[in-house]
Amino acid sequence: MQLISTIAQLRARLSAEASVAFVPTMGNLHQGHLDLMRQARLHGRCVVASIFVNPLQFGPNEDFDQYPRTLDDDCEKLQGLVDVVFAPGVNEMYPASQTVFVVPPPIADELCGAARPGHFQGMATVVCKLLNIVQPQAALFGKKDYQQLHIIRQLVAQLNMPVEVIGGETVRASDGLALSSRNQYLNEAERAEAVFLNQTLRSMREQLLSGARDFGMLEAAAVRALTARGWSVDYVAIRNQSDLKTAGAGELVVLAAARLGKTRLLDNIEVNLHP
Amino acid sequence: MQLISTIAQLRARLSAEASVAFVPTMGNLHQGHLDLMRQARLHGRCVVASIFVNPLQFGPNEDFDQYPRTLDDDCEKLQGLVDVVFAPGVNEMYPASQTVFVVPPPIADELCGAARPGHFQGMATVVCKLLNIVQPQAALFGKKDYQQLHIIRQLVAQLNMPVEVIGGETVRASDGLALSSRNQYLNEAERAEAVFLNQTLRSMREQLLSGARDFGMLEAAAVRALTARGWSVDYVAIRNQSDLKTAGAGELVVLAAARLGKTRLLDNIEVNLHP
Repeated sequence: MQLISTIAQLRARLSAEASVAFVPTMGNLHQGHLDLMRQARLHGRCVVASIFVNPLQFGPNEDFDQYPRTLDDDCEKLQGLVDVVFAPGVNEMYPASQTVFVVPPPIADELCGAARPGHFQGMATVVCKLLNIVQPQAALFGKKDYQQLHIIRQLVAQLNMPVEVIGGETVRASDGLALSSRNQYLNEAERAEAVFLNQTLRSMREQLLSGARDFGMLEAAAVRALTARGWSVDYVAIRNQSDLKTAGAGELVVLAAARLGKTRLLDNIEVNLHP
Repeated sequence: MQLISTIAQLRARLSAEASVAFVPTMGNLHQGHLDLMRQARLHGRCVVASIFVNPLQFGPNEDFDQYPRTLDDDCEKLQGLVDVVFAPGVNEMYPASQTVFVVPPPIADELCGAARPGHFQGMATVVCKLLNIVQPQAALFGKKDYQQLHIIRQLVAQLNMPVEVIGGETVRASDGLALSSRNQYLNEAERAEAVFLNQTLRSMREQLLSGARDFGMLEAAAVRALTARGWSVDYVAIRNQSDLKTAGAGELVVLAAARLGKTRLLDNIEVNLHP
């Protein structure tokens, strides 16, 4: 496994590769990331992981400085799983002020975008840059960040980027909590409570499968239940899997973002309603 | 020479090419385009020209419908010069509503951008799409559209696109008028007058080389001279070649856009001042 920090070196290293599969990350890797690396092996002879905490996708009051940076540990976990780790510094990715951006579709202003203005534009811009740097045949992203994956599929399709986007299933702790680098911000009590987010989504799924169709009422009940237990809820929303717009019927996804203390957690669950 | 209209066919055709040089155009080809095609041969084993009148870069009151479409003539001119002509329809380039855009840097709001809001975003978006479709090693653009070339250099650099951008010198009629597909909109009297735009820029160049340094005065005098002869002037501006910002000294470019009747003409001239 090779650790590379400059674009020029990475391009030289990859120039003779027949096929590359790429997993962009912000590091602080957990089992969810590592599953993506294993899955990547099925899509490219050479597997590249990137580790870059992208300042462009953090708001001014968000956790950019605090975000855990654990490059040595990450590299140890990646041994045997990937061929190349690309870990550029901020100056390598943004040698001058970035004034060219990729504007994501309007759905980027809803759901997580409503609470994090500019987040998805920053994400879309760095993903576009990374895809252009690595030039992979396939790129893998976790379904835990469901809206992010949707936006990446849109940007790749609409900008005709020559890459296949692959979503990886969410990996969970034994109690159901979706793995996330931000889980480590939780104190013991918060960690015990955190599982309730997934339980709420699972309960909504059951109700939908049992025939409940008043989506607004289901969403409001979930927000009330979370709020009553001390969560600060950004949203709970039942949407179409295909476009993330307000759901009709068919292939749905229930998405949620809520804060426990200062920690913002995401989760989602797909629900396929057969009419 | 092969004429291809779908992205899938183009990608299949180019998949085995070791190096591709690409000249994007809106068709209605003149000697300026053909010079770019010849220059392209120096930069790639396979030369691809695209012909696509991009609706995204035309404003609602601009000449999208009227823009000359002359595919048969264009293909004849390209015989022997290029290997592939890519001429997609609008539905091939925009199969669904385009909601992902490439936002150009702030300079896109000045000069031509001031009179054509959204133009450079539409241009940047389609150039990004075309570069992703063709995946060339080199792409060539005329220096007649000086601001466009500057913005393309910025977008390629800032989005880390793996392509070399090459500018081609402006080709002129014998009287000095820069060749442009829009010249054919001119009636006989307008065509005779049109040369005055280039004469104005050449005269400004002479004054700069002779030591004139009051740029604002030079610009204002040029606008007055053009206006007095019936031109409607969008701008005459002395800028830095490097960033197109208001010029200090050194490597300058004088840019102008002005209308004769309904026809908007562009021209520019580089001026290197040695202090």
